[in-house]
This record gives sequence, C-alpha cells and structure tokens, in this order.
Amino acid sequence: MTSATNPLGLAFMKMHGLGNDFVVIDSRGRGAVTTPALARALGDRHRGVGFDQLAEIRDSAEADFALDFWNSDGSRAGACGNATRCVAEFVMRGSGKAAVTLTTTRGHLQAVRRADGLVSVNMGAPQLDWAEVPLARPADTLHLPISGDPVAVGMGNPHCVFFVGNAETVNVADLGALFETDPLFPQKTNVEFATLTGPDRLRMRVWERGAGITLACGSGACATAVAAHRRGLTGRKVTLDLDGGALEIDWRSDGVWMTGPTAHVFDAMLPPAFLASIG
Amino acid sequence: MTSATNPLGLAFMKMHGLGNDFVVIDSRGRGAVTTPALARALGDRHRGVGFDQLAEIRDSAEADFALDFWNSDGSRAGACGNATRCVAEFVMRGSGKAAVTLTTTRGHLQAVRRADGLVSVNMGAPQLDWAEVPLARPADTLHLPISGDPVAVGMGNPHCVFFVGNAETVNVADLGALFETDPLFPQKTNVEFATLTGPDRLRMRVWERGAGITLACGSGACATAVAAHRRGLTGRKVTLDLDGGALEIDWRSDGVWMTGPTAHVFDAMLPPAFLASIG
Repeated sequence: MTSATNPLGLAFMKMHGLGNDFVVIDSRGRGAVTTPALARALGDRHRGVGFDQLAEIRDSAEADFALDFWNSDGSRAGACGNATRCVAEFVMRGSGKAAVTLTTTRGHLQAVRRADGLVSVNMGAPQLDWAEVPLARPADTLHLPISGDPVAVGMGNPHCVFFVGNAETVNVADLGALFETDPLFPQKTNVEFATLTGPDRLRMRVWERGAGITLACGSGACATAVAAHRRGLTGRKVTLDLDGGALEIDWRSDGVWMTGPTAHVFDAMLPPAFLASIG
Repeated sequence: MTSATNPLGLAFMKMHGLGNDFVVIDSRGRGAVTTPALARALGDRHRGVGFDQLAEIRDSAEADFALDFWNSDGSRAGACGNATRCVAEFVMRGSGKAAVTLTTTRGHLQAVRRADGLVSVNMGAPQLDWAEVPLARPADTLHLPISGDPVAVGMGNPHCVFFVGNAETVNVADLGALFETDPLFPQKTNVEFATLTGPDRLRMRVWERGAGITLACGSGACATAVAAHRRGLTGRKVTLDLDGGALEIDWRSDGVWMTGPTAHVFDAMLPPAFLASIG
C-alpha cells in the first residue's frame, strides 16, 4: 500500500519529550498511511523502530494540522501531550510561526513556542465531576473512598493521584498495578504518586494505564497539578519533576497548559522492502 | 566533533538478524566517528535510537572492510555474528559481490550470500581447551564439574551449554544469572539451555553475559552446536530454533559457519543538534 504510493519508501521522524518517545509520520498533502499492521511493525523496538506512541500529521480544514495517535499494539491512542508538543515544534519550525492550532480526538488544541525555546500546549479543561472522570458511581473526586485518600482527575483519560510522604520510595510497580484496576474506575486509571518538595514544586512518579511505569506522562502531570491545587497544596502554576525531567503546568481559565522541552532525534526512511514485508 | 565534519549530520542504518538489532555506521572513506559518548547516546532506546550492538564499518588494508563493535554502555564489544551477517549483506549488495572478507578483533572472517538469500559467516574455530574458554582451573570442558553436567565452549567468548529435557520450561532468568557468575568462569560466561527436538535440530534459549535473556545469540548458537556434536547428539550441521528464529550452524574444518536471515530496517540521519548535545 504505502510502498506503492512512494517507490522510495516511507519517511518518518523520531522525537521525544522527557524520554517519552514518538515516531512521527508527516502525511500532510496526501492521505493517511498508518494501519494497525504498520503501527505494530514500527512499534517493535528490535525489528522495527520502537515508540511509546506513533503520531501521524494530517491536513485539517479547521486548524493548522490534525494529529492521530496510535499505540504499538496497533490500537488508536488518545491525545498525548508530549507528542503534541514535539510535533507542534516541528510544524512551527517549518512554517516560521510561534503558535499553531491542531485537532485531535480531544478537540482543538493550541501550542506555542516560548522565548526560552520550551513548547507549551493547552491540554484543555480538567474533568472534576465523578461521571466525567469517569468513576463507577457518585463519589467526592477530591477525597476518593480508596485507601490513601487519592484525588480523581480526568484529563481526557482518568487519573488517581496520591499525595505521599516520599514519592521516591513508593513501590510504583506494585501499587500502580493494584489501583489501575480499582473497581471505582470502570475504564481503569492512570496512577500518580506525588510529594511536595518546595513552593509550587512536586516530585511525581507515574503508572500509566496499560503501559506501566513510564518516564513522563503529560496528562498525569496535568492531573497532579490540578489535584495539588484543589487540595490547597500549591498555586495554579507548578513545576513537576518526573523521572524523565521537569514539566511546568499552569491551570489557566482556558485550560491546563503544559510546558517542557522537545527533541527531534533523527529523520529516517523505511525502504519498500520493509513495507512490503508487513503486507 | 562529528557534526563539524558533516554539516548535514551523521548517517546511520538500523538492521537486525532474528531480532538481534544493530545501529550501523558506514565510515569507509573517512575516519571512525564512534566515541563512548556517541554509543551511549545512540544506545538509549527512548532518547536515541536503541540497539543491542553498534557496528562501525571502516576501511581495511587486508580485507574488504573492518568492523568495530560497541555496547550501549559505551564499552567496546567482541565480534557479533548476527551483526556481521547484516553488515556483510549490506556491503555485498553495494559491491555486487556474493562473498566478502572482513577484519574484527577476532581476526579475519569470511561471509557469503547463499542462493536462498540467507547470509553465512565463518565464526572461526571453537576453543575446546579449558585455558582458552577460559576456565579458572583445569577441567574436562565436555563434562564440567558443575550441577547439570554442562559443556564449556569458547567462541571468542565463554559459553556454558546445558542439555535439558525441555528448554521451553527452564527458568532461564534465574539459572542464567546463577551460572553466569560461576567461579569456574573467571570472565563470567554466556549460558545456553538446549533440547534435541529432531534429527540435527535443537531448541535453544540463551542468557547473555551482561545482557540477560536475548532473542538470538549467534556465538551461543555456534557453541551449542559444537557442544551437541561433541556429546554425540548431532552431526556437524544443525538447525537451532532460538526465540528470534532459526539459525543453521555448520562446524566445518575451517571454522563454525552460521547462516540466517538479515533485515535492513531503515536508513536515517542524526541532525547536527543531536550530535552537538552529546559534546
């Protein structure tokens, strides 16, 4: 299929934000090329390329571009903040602009490059109502009826945020797996463990739903900042230190803005033989 | 450094043999560019490219090319048979030849492309003497004084081969880690578990020294075939089914030949900014 449209093969890029890594395919000016089989083949870190998410850029009538997300198992993924920041930086560099709009399954998003070179994306308003998170039944999202007194926040996906004495020593693997499948979360949940380490500064570690421990979960950082402010621990603008580095989160009236570094690692070409092998 | 010599960046390729994956840098016609810092940066599967070994092709006065191997921790690696087969296929394709010679730290090697497209490499003669494996003290390499009655074989690196009733059900992680550091092996050892599954056919699983469980260890396949023939279980030519696929091993008078598939996954360019970031 793809090899038929381009005898040279398929071009892609590799990018990352705080070690959260992406294969990016720019399909503007042509049709989308990603299929479940292509996502699985590229997602193999030994026989393909490897990524946390695959992002495909498409033309959009209403925004500067559209963005589709895929998982390495071939399924579609929800919006990914770190990938959005990386792709926005690439599109801004190409167009000479310092701000872009894009459409994803979460709707319209805005992204801007700051003077310091970091890229911000508006992740939208958080969901604070139990039905929107979603929870399985009515509950106070600020004090869930779960051991450890966590906070529930929706950021397009569910989050369960625990404030702990020392996030460094928490057994994230065991506790993350335990709470991911708590029956209060009918769609399962991401699990964050956070500790206040200074004024408006938090150390955070994360267990991602379906992925386990990851270096940096953008929506988890947003959810943790929202939870910290709702609990009166911080102001609306905080810095979160994740395993992969620091993200700035600013809960503004128009949504939760996430700011951090982007990295364009390499440009590459998949030869026709690779594409032919996946059918 | 490298970015100074090429303002476009640094070209590389990604290849694999049975899922054993490699970054390949072709430095023929120029000086070698790999440094420990570059190997570490490229070896990071999230922030770089990711590989089991990095192979750099250099000009050679005595052979068609020379090959240097690096690990992702920045150290130099010994010869890697799967990487040698992949690089030989690339060089043969470029030159139109179906046979090449190369030099590595193990000396001169020969590689040929067979009519069926599979690529063979001569991994050299096995070391069967206890001092050459090496062992810490004199012992019968065909019956080591270790529980499970394993065979010791040197293939440029030490191997400890166990013949077991069912390699599928062996706890390779626990037993591999245990025997890797057996005091009989002063340089530690790779550990193989093999079961005869048919005439001249073996199922093999491997624990690689310093790397753990891997999909396909070429030297381990050679060592296991040598051990099986010495034990009278097989002829000199056998097929080994590894986790990543099948390798054919033929212990000839001129050395142990390993034959299997090669895959060229993609061609890529690291931008100058990436190279500048690693100093």
